[in-house]
Amino acid sequence: MASNSFGTLFRITTWGESHGKAIGVVIDGCPAGLEISEKEIHQELILRSPGQNPYVTPRKEADLPEILSGVFEGKTTGAPLSILIPNRNADSTPYHAIKEMLRPGHANYPYLTKFGIFDYRGGGRASARETACRVAAGAVAKKILKHHNISLVAYLQEAGGVAANIPLENIETTRTLTQQSPVFCPDENTATAIMERIATAAQEGDSIGGIVAFCITGLPVGLGDPIYEKIEANLAKAMMSLPATKGFEIGEGFQAARMQGSTHNDIFQSDSGEITTQTNYAGGTLAGITTGMPLIGKVAFKPPSGIKKAQPTITLEKKEATLALPKGSKHDPCVAIRAVPIVEAMCALVI
Amino acid sequence: MASNSFGTLFRITTWGESHGKAIGVVIDGCPAGLEISEKEIHQELILRSPGQNPYVTPRKEADLPEILSGVFEGKTTGAPLSILIPNRNADSTPYHAIKEMLRPGHANYPYLTKFGIFDYRGGGRASARETACRVAAGAVAKKILKHHNISLVAYLQEAGGVAANIPLENIETTRTLTQQSPVFCPDENTATAIMERIATAAQEGDSIGGIVAFCITGLPVGLGDPIYEKIEANLAKAMMSLPATKGFEIGEGFQAARMQGSTHNDIFQSDSGEITTQTNYAGGTLAGITTGMPLIGKVAFKPPSGIKKAQPTITLEKKEATLALPKGSKHDPCVAIRAVPIVEAMCALVI
Amino acid sequence: MASNSFGTLFRITTWGESHGKAIGVVIDGCPAGLEISEKEIHQELILRSPGQNPYVTPRKEADLPEILSGVFEGKTTGAPLSILIPNRNADSTPYHAIKEMLRPGHANYPYLTKFGIFDYRGGGRASARETACRVAAGAVAKKILKHHNISLVAYLQEAGGVAANIPLENIETTRTLTQQSPVFCPDENTATAIMERIATAAQEGDSIGGIVAFCITGLPVGLGDPIYEKIEANLAKAMMSLPATKGFEIGEGFQAARMQGSTHNDIFQSDSGEITTQTNYAGGTLAGITTGMPLIGKVAFKPPSGIKKAQPTITLEKKEATLALPKGSKHDPCVAIRAVPIVEAMCALVI
Amino acid sequence: MASNSFGTLFRITTWGESHGKAIGVVIDGCPAGLEISEKEIHQELILRSPGQNPYVTPRKEADLPEILSGVFEGKTTGAPLSILIPNRNADSTPYHAIKEMLRPGHANYPYLTKFGIFDYRGGGRASARETACRVAAGAVAKKILKHHNISLVAYLQEAGGVAANIPLENIETTRTLTQQSPVFCPDENTATAIMERIATAAQEGDSIGGIVAFCITGLPVGLGDPIYEKIEANLAKAMMSLPATKGFEIGEGFQAARMQGSTHNDIFQSDSGEITTQTNYAGGTLAGITTGMPLIGKVAFKPPSGIKKAQPTITLEKKEATLALPKGSKHDPCVAIRAVPIVEAMCALVI
Repeated sequence: MASNSFGTLFRITTWGESHGKAIGVVIDGCPAGLEISEKEIHQELILRSPGQNPYVTPRKEADLPEILSGVFEGKTTGAPLSILIPNRNADSTPYHAIKEMLRPGHANYPYLTKFGIFDYRGGGRASARETACRVAAGAVAKKILKHHNISLVAYLQEAGGVAANIPLENIETTRTLTQQSPVFCPDENTATAIMERIATAAQEGDSIGGIVAFCITGLPVGLGDPIYEKIEANLAKAMMSLPATKGFEIGEGFQAARMQGSTHNDIFQSDSGEITTQTNYAGGTLAGITTGMPLIGKVAFKPPSGIKKAQPTITLEKKEATLALPKGSKHDPCVAIRAVPIVEAMCALVI
Repeated sequence: MASNSFGTLFRITTWGESHGKAIGVVIDGCPAGLEISEKEIHQELILRSPGQNPYVTPRKEADLPEILSGVFEGKTTGAPLSILIPNRNADSTPYHAIKEMLRPGHANYPYLTKFGIFDYRGGGRASARETACRVAAGAVAKKILKHHNISLVAYLQEAGGVAANIPLENIETTRTLTQQSPVFCPDENTATAIMERIATAAQEGDSIGGIVAFCITGLPVGLGDPIYEKIEANLAKAMMSLPATKGFEIGEGFQAARMQGSTHNDIFQSDSGEITTQTNYAGGTLAGITTGMPLIGKVAFKPPSGIKKAQPTITLEKKEATLALPKGSKHDPCVAIRAVPIVEAMCALVI
Repeated sequence: MASNSFGTLFRITTWGESHGKAIGVVIDGCPAGLEISEKEIHQELILRSPGQNPYVTPRKEADLPEILSGVFEGKTTGAPLSILIPNRNADSTPYHAIKEMLRPGHANYPYLTKFGIFDYRGGGRASARETACRVAAGAVAKKILKHHNISLVAYLQEAGGVAANIPLENIETTRTLTQQSPVFCPDENTATAIMERIATAAQEGDSIGGIVAFCITGLPVGLGDPIYEKIEANLAKAMMSLPATKGFEIGEGFQAARMQGSTHNDIFQSDSGEITTQTNYAGGTLAGITTGMPLIGKVAFKPPSGIKKAQPTITLEKKEATLALPKGSKHDPCVAIRAVPIVEAMCALVI
Repeated sequence: MASNSFGTLFRITTWGESHGKAIGVVIDGCPAGLEISEKEIHQELILRSPGQNPYVTPRKEADLPEILSGVFEGKTTGAPLSILIPNRNADSTPYHAIKEMLRPGHANYPYLTKFGIFDYRGGGRASARETACRVAAGAVAKKILKHHNISLVAYLQEAGGVAANIPLENIETTRTLTQQSPVFCPDENTATAIMERIATAAQEGDSIGGIVAFCITGLPVGLGDPIYEKIEANLAKAMMSLPATKGFEIGEGFQAARMQGSTHNDIFQSDSGEITTQTNYAGGTLAGITTGMPLIGKVAFKPPSGIKKAQPTITLEKKEATLALPKGSKHDPCVAIRAVPIVEAMCALVI
């Protein structure tokens, strides 16, 4: 079944495998007259690019995007944008040894059963590499949002059990601090502690999970649609479509389930002529429609399944085996870090 | 924008307001030859019906459904099923007094801004009454699943801070215990403690939140589609489209973000010829596709916003006011209870 | 597969069989604040109602619609409108005798094979009765179009080989003449000739086909979308989804295939400051997008398959048989007449 | 609005302009395990490629497709196929002179008004070049159909007023004769007469229209869905989404509107144990669902608007002007010829 498209009016369709020739995205429904360049898209891709620092997987990927259509004399024409990102560094020999094994926590078992075929060279289509396409499309979406004065930021809020408490008074400051941090965590102390946790896990050949928070400001009151197209429902689907996600929260999330109504209800007030709420436990949405308060939420990422530590498993023929990832293979110790710009991109795509 | 439909091949479209003549659902894509009766649908509706016990809102609703089309001589014909549920007990006079006020935590502010009109008599379209239609459609979906030997259960796992730990060895036992409990919690001690918490909150004119867990067994390996149509993404959207939901988890959810890869990875084993995993932290899905293990997850519900306690607020004209819900009005102290059969219905609809 | 909905932003979902309790439509995506009443919808339904004159099937159907939701104090609320039309006059006894036979030109063979079940009492879901729902929804759509000064008309252009040549200078005049004609043909001489042809066919227990033309004025330049959502593509799908349609044309249609480019190209001119074309062979659209000229086209309807004349056929068990429709059964001698308001409704729904 | 995708379960998304770097298509929903090669796709592209003979536009396009994803070791993996076709021969200098003019019968006026921007170098996105992507996708679809023993053929049935009468006893013979004909017309005498008509039109700097017929055999009974997803409705949309189409017919089409029911009704018979009909006026479908008889229909193409003959027009600023296409520009005298493989591709995509 066709399942590689996201969105209705502004729709992206992604394609490509981690070890194929290239990956890419077609963006359909982009308004005409928007200035966009390959350089701008590249800038966003650099952020999620591995090999930027020791805390993410050391595969070097140039991620130089090429706009193949939809732009004429520097501006979009209303025709679909086709963006292609070539694949490099695709030596797949290390994977030959493990191609018969079921990899714990990994896509190869359900994919093999569903499709009868699995590109054993990497995650194939299920690889996090697909998310580069989302970031490229997100770069275009963010330019559109900028025209509407909508700002957004995502950051690493927790990893390996170390959590940061980030005030969101000034979203632009948070954004700057986030981009300066090697682990995309705007709080320096937390960032340092997280880096230590990652270093320890990496030494053990292990991996850790993490939580990414997002915040969107400048939204008008009234975005989102009743019943089945609530804004939090579409955000949830977008986030839970990312690799390695296990949970989604809007506003206080699961914590809200432990509060009483008299506390959780955000009290309305007139704030120099504007209607706001004293608190924002709801996270900027009531009954699926934006209230004008910042839209805030969180996404939980599991620890990546690809670890160097040896693990028992079986083969498709049900023989016992031990999976030890090949020395040449490269893996993220904490996928939540690279997920930060991707969550930001998905926010932009949903809005 | 059209937003009252859910699903692609099996699609439901719901309509109706809490204080209108009736509500209903059109089910399109139901296979021909399925035996279904108004009585069976009624049975499911009774479960979510208010007034069953003191722990849910005392409005009496008969919820007698009428099948208007799509069934001939007791069997579905492949044509759309139209199910109508008349509304009763719709005295809206108590609401007149508060029709100008912004109700904290309630849909009326964003709806008024978006549509310029709001049926002040209740939640209108945003009312939890819409979920009766989901339960009716879920009753049909469950009959289809039964033909494929798929079982599912949802239950109240936590409310007011009191949590149960439910073993899921036998899903049918859990289902029976759940339906016997006045608060849909299969663990008796937890149920009692939750009832006390509800009683206290109700006395204070307050409300509490809760968490509903679900478990689906008998699924084949390979359900769900890669990238944007992952099974957890569609479940997340389904659940976050329910009124009052604030969070969604699959498997360990946010707890997974605090684990290490070597622990979180579920080890594959050959279990009397079948491929299973020793643990099920992933919750029955890898990369968006079912693994054959039980599909498990949780949904967080906020404390209902409609409370009797007086709350400060403003009117649309930004005048200060105090909102005290009228004496005649009836509200759930804990919406998560009634949400149990609805979460179960949404599970059935997604699968 | 779900196939009873039409449209994306403004979406209708119809349900109900010709011999069931009722039929109905859910209209989703209707803007809030539109004044609409059951009386207005009834007015449109009367036009397509059988039994109005001897030229259409004599079944008496009151077609009194009931708006069950989506309207509050006379105005739409943005919530889905549910409109129900009860069925009357549903004596199905006459059909018992022929329930085993394959009816030539009729839906019962492919339906039986596809669904394994067929409501032999009439056309079931495939009956033209479903189109009453389209007319009801079209009544709502036309009210929206009226706000945008868009006018439309459909009329019987040809039947039984007799064709009218209708000048479209004044669309309102054509509309009035059409509604005054017992066969919806605005040219009186043609109407008379067509009525004679129908009388002859009816006497022979036979039926005739016909062609319905449509014209939409007041459209802005730029409606429709490139490539797969061209306005003529969506109109074609809408019309070819009507029962008994066999062909669709935009502008000159098949006649255009017999012209030369130098003749067929409509020459642009400045007409008191507005850009128009000297001719309108294109029919108001270029490359799928409106040009501002009237959108014109035609729809071909086959002669109805339900005729009183005896016809040879076989049963599902492949035994030879003779089909003679029961005396009590009622059939249109020319379905194209009743199709006129339906084509008009579909035009409104597409736009 | 997103409008560059076609299909739901098997969905294609096309991108690219006639004078850009490349064009391409993403095919989503292709089953895993299908053998497909660039060579096979190329073979189909050659058929619609211009410059094959003097009867179609002399632009030389190599149309060498590159499969960028979705195929591993020669077989599809279930992941989306991305196929890229580079553009050559894109000298756009000749077009500079006419970039301000409204071109009669051409997309530039509505596109300019809708998007505020138009790639004046050719048809841009509206160019027939986009159809190369449909043919490439059609090549994949045809391979899937072959596995189900479904055959299809399209051929030029009429052009410039000269029509052929093609018996469809043997669809494979018709296919062979069609591919041998320089104008894709399986009847040699008609082909010769059409070539003369084209030569005359070309000499006059003019163009002619044409009609393409299609025939699909081997379809099971029961394909297509009731009401809004009738097979003829989806075929009509597919065909009317092609550039230059003005009409669509299924079975007898408009001729059916001139027949009586007793003649038009196809009589059922038992044909060596199979249920068939004596005639096939319906064209293989009843009430939107296939009957097992060949699915036949026709598509009307207008004469191409791009002609060398000088034509009066105006500019966007409403000044009078004369449009004479530049000497270097190249145009089809009869677009219906090249449309033949495209109609065939669209048939394959719909089925």
